Parts: sequence; structure tokens; C-alpha cells
Amino acid sequence: MAEQSVSDVVINRLPLYLRMLEFLQKEGKAITSSQELGERLALSSAQIRKDLSYFGGFGKQGTGYNVEYLQKQLRQILHIDQMWDVAVIGAGDLGRALVHYQGFASEGFQIVAIFDIAQKKIGMPVGDLVVASMDELPRVVQEKQLAVVILAVPAESAQSVANQLIELGVRAILNYAPITLNVPPNVRVYNIDPVVGLQSMTYYLQVKV
Amino acid sequence: MAEQSVSDVVINRLPLYLRMLEFLQKEGKAITSSQELGERLALSSAQIRKDLSYFGGFGKQGTGYNVEYLQKQLRQILHIDQMWDVAVIGAGDLGRALVHYQGFASEGFQIVAIFDIAQKKIGMPVGDLVVASMDELPRVVQEKQLAVVILAVPAESAQSVANQLIELGVRAILNYAPITLNVPPNVRVYNIDPVVGLQSMTYYLQVKV
Repeated sequence: MAEQSVSDVVINRLPLYLRMLEFLQKEGKAITSSQELGERLALSSAQIRKDLSYFGGFGKQGTGYNVEYLQKQLRQILHIDQMWDVAVIGAGDLGRALVHYQGFASEGFQIVAIFDIAQKKIGMPVGDLVVASMDELPRVVQEKQLAVVILAVPAESAQSVANQLIELGVRAILNYAPITLNVPPNVRVYNIDPVVGLQSMTYYLQVKV
Repeated sequence: MAEQSVSDVVINRLPLYLRMLEFLQKEGKAITSSQELGERLALSSAQIRKDLSYFGGFGKQGTGYNVEYLQKQLRQILHIDQMWDVAVIGAGDLGRALVHYQGFASEGFQIVAIFDIAQKKIGMPVGDLVVASMDELPRVVQEKQLAVVILAVPAESAQSVANQLIELGVRAILNYAPITLNVPPNVRVYNIDPVVGLQSMTYYLQVKV
């Protein structure tokens, strides 16, 4: 298993496989195949077999994949067979929506704190949390040993907040700010930007008359 | 110009180039280079030159790219030299946060309607809009000739709402629901899923002890 050499593109597909397996399990399926996964995910079955082969394969020719076992393996590979504590930085509309989102806990992530710089937001309840001051950030990162943070601040302050997070030891940033962050090679960034998504679709659309 | 043959991966990078050019212009730069763009975006300069070459190149060896001109060209290529009207389906925390988001208008998108199925949400003001009933959807899609929709509904209802949208003629769906939508080949889907982002980062993190 040479996990180091697997490309980011392959890694980015593993969560999709896991999600589809969870979905199939809810449908009552115990066994699936690369064909079925491929059809459901609009990928080729060969692609799926190849992606999974980097980690050992998990299926026998002709017998398919055990839905529960493959989920368990993918959770181990993605390191979500444990719960990760996550902080949200920015208590605007988006930050608050993320705290309220119910889809994290079952997938390995628990939002344990939300921070903002604005005095009027500090102390405000958001779900089960209370917005904390950015002054509290170093203490909380250390106490909770936070490695993963969701950045939901305006573009103007994203880089300076990211620098602060990295200095505190954060290693993974889910970045909602519409800028490309500059980070050292040992820090991962995953960008979420609806504008990029919309623009890459309108390329394919006929221009309106 | 054989735009049809350009891969999705290349197209997905064009909005990033555009965003960086806008950023450089704000910094007062009139000329940039594939080297500078590459450094800022953590891509190789060769990659950037190759991506742009599909559409004609836009730069001369040794003189770099004109920041304003390249922006204009990219906006034409991405079909955002016009404004696209967009509807948000789902007036939960996320849908409302999207309506409030200030980053769409300057990038070619204007949210003109928000819909929900829940009686208690219909009529509620969100920014300058009022939540409309899903019964209004066919009329609004037709009147505004909506091609682009943002889907911010729970996973359980996402596929059936998508089917409805596609039947009404919607051709591009920015999907926030954590499922892989089944759509015909002439419809584009771009998925935004924080869980997928988080899981593809924790792969690279040391497991906590």
C-alpha cells in the first residue's frame, strides 16, 4: 500500500464512494459492485476498481463489494473512524448555517466552537454553542487539539486568519472565503466557492439571447 | 477553437484565473504572467499557459498578460459577460445565507427568487426577496427564463426537486444536498459538499492519538 503516491483526484472521490455506500445501506443493500457504484456516481466501473485497488481492492471478481465492510475500510483510509473536533471561524450567516448543519456528526466531524472578531457577535448563541472571541482561539485550539478548521470569514481577512491558524498548528482548512490561500506544503486547503461552481457551469450553457 | 474538447478540469480552473486577475487588478497590476499566476494559485506556469492556449493564448512571449483584457476574455468564455438570474430552492439556514451573500452579483449571478415547500417559510422576507411557494416555481422559471438554480434542500427531497427543475428547462444545478443527483447528459451539476472536503483532507492528517 503506497498511499503517499495516490493522487488528490482519487482521494477526492473516496468520500463520494463512502456516501454512496451509506446510501445503498439505507436502501437495504448488503452487496454492491463497481458497475452499480459507477452507474450511481456517473463514473466508469473501471475507474472505481482502479481507485479502490490503490488501497487493496476490497472485492473479489464476481462477488462484488460488501457494503458495510467497504464503508468501514474507507472510513479508516480517510481517518474518520474517529471523531474530529472542528472550529468554525466567522459567525456570519454562513458560519451559523454550518453550526446548524446536521450532516457533519455522522461523517466524522463535530463542530465544537465558533469564533468571530465582531464584539456584537461575541456571546451570541448559535445552536448549542456561543460565539467566542478570536482572543480565545489559541487556548481552544490547544485544549481541543484542533487540526481542522472551517474558515467562513470575508476574503479580506481570510489570509491573515489562516496564517494565525497555521501558526497555532491547524493542518486542514475548509476555506469558504473566495480567495486562494497561501499556505505551507504541510497544510491542506479545500476550497468551497459557489461562484467557481456557477461559472464552470455557465461555460457549458448557451448564452441567453 | 475546439472548446468542446476542453476537459472539465481545465474549465474548473478558469474561474480561479479570473478571480486571481480581479485580485491583481485591485492590487493595481495592469500586466501579469503565467509565472505570477502560477505562484499565486499554486499551479505550474506551464499548466496555466496550456489551459489558456485552448482558447487562443492571450499573451505574447515575454510581454505577459494584460490583466484587464484577459479578465474580459475569460468572462466571455465562461458566458458571464451577461448577468444570469438564479433561483435558490430551499429557505433553510443555507438558502438564506446564499441570498445574503454579496459575492454573486459582481461575478455574473443575481439571485432573483427563493422557494420553499414549508408553509411557515412561505412569505418570509430574506434580504430583498420573499420566500415563494414551490407552486410558483414553473411560472417563475418561465418568466425569468431561469437556466441556473441553486439547490439547498435536504438530501431526501433533492432528486425529486431536481427532476422537477430539469423538466422545467433548468440546465445547471449548483447542488448543496449531500447526494449524487441523477441527471440527463444535457444538464450540468456542480456539487458543493463540506463533508467531502473535510474527509478528503483528513486522509492526509495523522490520526489523533
